[in-house]
Amino acid sequence: MYEDRILRAGLEALIISPKQAAALFKDQMVVASSGFTKSGDSKAVLAALAERAKADPLKITLMTGASLGHDTDGMLTEAKVLSMRLPFQVDPVLRKAINNGEVLYIDQHLGETANLLKANNFPKIDIAILEATLIEADGSIVPTTSIGNSAAFAELADHIIIEINTTIPFSICGLHDIVSLGNYPNRPAIPIIAANSRVGTTSIPLNPDKIIGIVITNTTDSPAEIAPADETTSAIAARLVAFFADEVKKGHLTKSLLPLQAGIGKVANSVLSGFIDGDFEHLTMYSEVLQDSTFDLLDSGKLDFASGSSITVSEPYYEKIFCNLEHYKNKVVLRPQDISNSAAIIRRLGVIAINTALECDIYGNVNSTHVSGTNMMNGIGGSGDFSRNAYLSIFVTQSLAKGGAISSIVPMVSHVDHTEHDVDIIVTEQGLADLRGLAPRQRAKVIIENCAHPDYKADLLDYFERASKRGGQTPHLLEEAFSCYIRLRETGTMRRS
Amino acid sequence: MYEDRILRAGLEALIISPKQAAALFKDQMVVASSGFTKSGDSKAVLAALAERAKADPLKITLMTGASLGHDTDGMLTEAKVLSMRLPFQVDPVLRKAINNGEVLYIDQHLGETANLLKANNFPKIDIAILEATLIEADGSIVPTTSIGNSAAFAELADHIIIEINTTIPFSICGLHDIVSLGNYPNRPAIPIIAANSRVGTTSIPLNPDKIIGIVITNTTDSPAEIAPADETTSAIAARLVAFFADEVKKGHLTKSLLPLQAGIGKVANSVLSGFIDGDFEHLTMYSEVLQDSTFDLLDSGKLDFASGSSITVSEPYYEKIFCNLEHYKNKVVLRPQDISNSAAIIRRLGVIAINTALECDIYGNVNSTHVSGTNMMNGIGGSGDFSRNAYLSIFVTQSLAKGGAISSIVPMVSHVDHTEHDVDIIVTEQGLADLRGLAPRQRAKVIIENCAHPDYKADLLDYFERASKRGGQTPHLLEEAFSCYIRLRETGTMRRS
Repeated sequence: MYEDRILRAGLEALIISPKQAAALFKDQMVVASSGFTKSGDSKAVLAALAERAKADPLKITLMTGASLGHDTDGMLTEAKVLSMRLPFQVDPVLRKAINNGEVLYIDQHLGETANLLKANNFPKIDIAILEATLIEADGSIVPTTSIGNSAAFAELADHIIIEINTTIPFSICGLHDIVSLGNYPNRPAIPIIAANSRVGTTSIPLNPDKIIGIVITNTTDSPAEIAPADETTSAIAARLVAFFADEVKKGHLTKSLLPLQAGIGKVANSVLSGFIDGDFEHLTMYSEVLQDSTFDLLDSGKLDFASGSSITVSEPYYEKIFCNLEHYKNKVVLRPQDISNSAAIIRRLGVIAINTALECDIYGNVNSTHVSGTNMMNGIGGSGDFSRNAYLSIFVTQSLAKGGAISSIVPMVSHVDHTEHDVDIIVTEQGLADLRGLAPRQRAKVIIENCAHPDYKADLLDYFERASKRGGQTPHLLEEAFSCYIRLRETGTMRRS
Repeated sequence: MYEDRILRAGLEALIISPKQAAALFKDQMVVASSGFTKSGDSKAVLAALAERAKADPLKITLMTGASLGHDTDGMLTEAKVLSMRLPFQVDPVLRKAINNGEVLYIDQHLGETANLLKANNFPKIDIAILEATLIEADGSIVPTTSIGNSAAFAELADHIIIEINTTIPFSICGLHDIVSLGNYPNRPAIPIIAANSRVGTTSIPLNPDKIIGIVITNTTDSPAEIAPADETTSAIAARLVAFFADEVKKGHLTKSLLPLQAGIGKVANSVLSGFIDGDFEHLTMYSEVLQDSTFDLLDSGKLDFASGSSITVSEPYYEKIFCNLEHYKNKVVLRPQDISNSAAIIRRLGVIAINTALECDIYGNVNSTHVSGTNMMNGIGGSGDFSRNAYLSIFVTQSLAKGGAISSIVPMVSHVDHTEHDVDIIVTEQGLADLRGLAPRQRAKVIIENCAHPDYKADLLDYFERASKRGGQTPHLLEEAFSCYIRLRETGTMRRS
């Protein structure tokens, strides 16, 4: 059995049940798992570990590529397995435990986790769980729908459990491009000079002696749930498409623009869809997550090529892609997340980065993660990898949240994920603020005028004008910089009564 | 005359006086000048421009590598020449004008300015003033004590004025390594894989048709003024040296560590000097400014090689270096600042970055620039280029400022230049906080315990504990997060009465 998926002789003997695999973990272990934005994650072993912990408790540090599917983080949280989690999550149960202080959470730039591991920021990884399509004869593994940090985990972990997912067609072989950043002090330059550069191998090198178990699964990825575009997100998309058309007209960019990156979520997805109708051609993507809209753009003929670290799509797209892998394989590549999110490559290629902000302040600082400066929403993800190094760093947000009780444009963000240095363009449904070449006082006027909702404009302008009178490069009145959050907390709305 | 410094035939005819050069500028021009941390700056033309403006006013945007020497920024400010200034400054007169709102200031990551120019963030550069040792027969120029953004300015400016500085010995030829990032969308990988890699040319390519004037000067750079080490800075240095010794002992690093970067100022300088007495060997530097301490380390035999963008030293060091250039040329290279501060190369090499913080908060966010969140001190400089991409990102600061009226450790920094993601180690004279692998709540305890001054510890701990009770990934009480600044403003001290 499984001869076609375990090409390395002798490894069949390591096939175990998820329950047996779960028994291999010990209290206080550092555990790594494949999985990036719900794709290519551990379907069986982590679930069995949560089950085991109900009778036989243990605590682990769990690191992944990014978020997991199948409510795995929630199950692990409920079973009290997690003492520490990194570098990203989106699970509501885990989120609550993080904000309660029950689970320690390290929110990391997704492009940095592998670097930090190699820089001794963590104890050694005891066990890595890696989903694979198959094990090659040389012991290397072909990943599935994501790569994430799997290549780094395979290199660094003491022991490895492989989950072979039999739902993944063999035709996925050849989709991946695996290259390692190498080890200090002799790390090479990675010669990726275009979204479609292929510079590595199609499987993850792995020392088969590390394998302590192989689990067979046949569960597909959790499907992405993408809210459909609405009036607001369509307005944001339209403004951005018009902006790019104007940049082309000015001769700043050609109709092929530069490689696109888009964050997750309905706004970013809606923006990507907006390119289908614009006057663009031979577009490329150098992004982290390839979403439904990526495949729409490919199918439309507007997009020539897409590079990412995962394919995270809704159910109908999943089916379409897997029935046509030979077709898409010439137009898509998956990379390790330290390559998809590499500062070097993002800057070299001149990526146009489009990410979602939770809130922006009048000087262009962005909060992507912390509600009222305190409670974690999801995590910074790759937004910092891209915005810091992009040719153009664009943040999109709706001008209002919670039915108007919250303004997404505030005097001073309650938590800074991206400083004004890393933010070129802010877009809301109200308008677009082009901050390039502007000093902070100029930025404030443009952001308030173009992006704030009319209900909050007068307040913001009043704050800025009074602060400016007191002076400074970035004028603030610290005694009232956060008063809108305090009002929100006390009265349920940022609006003045 | 000057046949030995103008090797391109016909260019002698372009020699003009500083006054004649100053007359070439028009109101509203975008002007670029060489100069990085007081080295290799325009000595004659910008001074003449300030003089001219007294009788014949004009306003310009002025961009440089980094700060200028010879009070040039102050003179230009007093003559009301500057409408906008970027990407860095340290001048007290200009600082005041910036904070008054009289001069617009764009504070930039020093490694990004050239990238931003190529990404159309600014109007075209009308005139670039570039200090040179000599003009080669092919029209290229050999820079002097810094490169800064000169290579990018030479490439991008419409017109160029060259200041030939006759105080610079010919033996400087060969010190520089010039390579361009190229232009979108076809930028190559820059193959620098060690501090001493040489990958480019020794002079800056330049189209001689752009030259509109050559000015001869014989003024040396303004000397660096470095405050001597004192008890506090020595304590910080000692703690850091002990930390590195421990990392070597743990097997994380060899005695050669990894390439070092150190910011400017007496703390960073003192730290570098601390390496002389430690048990290290074959050290290298991949930094931006090569200071007195760099040459002490080279002379001590501890440092094998230093890469930077400028040599900024005090008077006796200047003399020593220039009398021994043939010796130092094998141990030192100067690079364009988009290469010395390149995210790609800093991360590839695994640079150990040591920068100075104005203040840090209990979660590890750092303010490098804004006094009480509002008034600009100098600028972010290269600290963000290095801290984001470093193998180890270290920030040093004294625990107290203004005779104890200010605590450098605060509940929430009033301005964020570096987020907690980009800060691994904080050191004050009180102790060292190793934040690697810690979640925010863990970070707070270590920073307060190890780094805060005893006079402020109880207050900080009280804030953290009360905030933690309310909950959150990064617990804060927004209504009092800034109360120490308000107390400072109202009573002259952060101490409670």
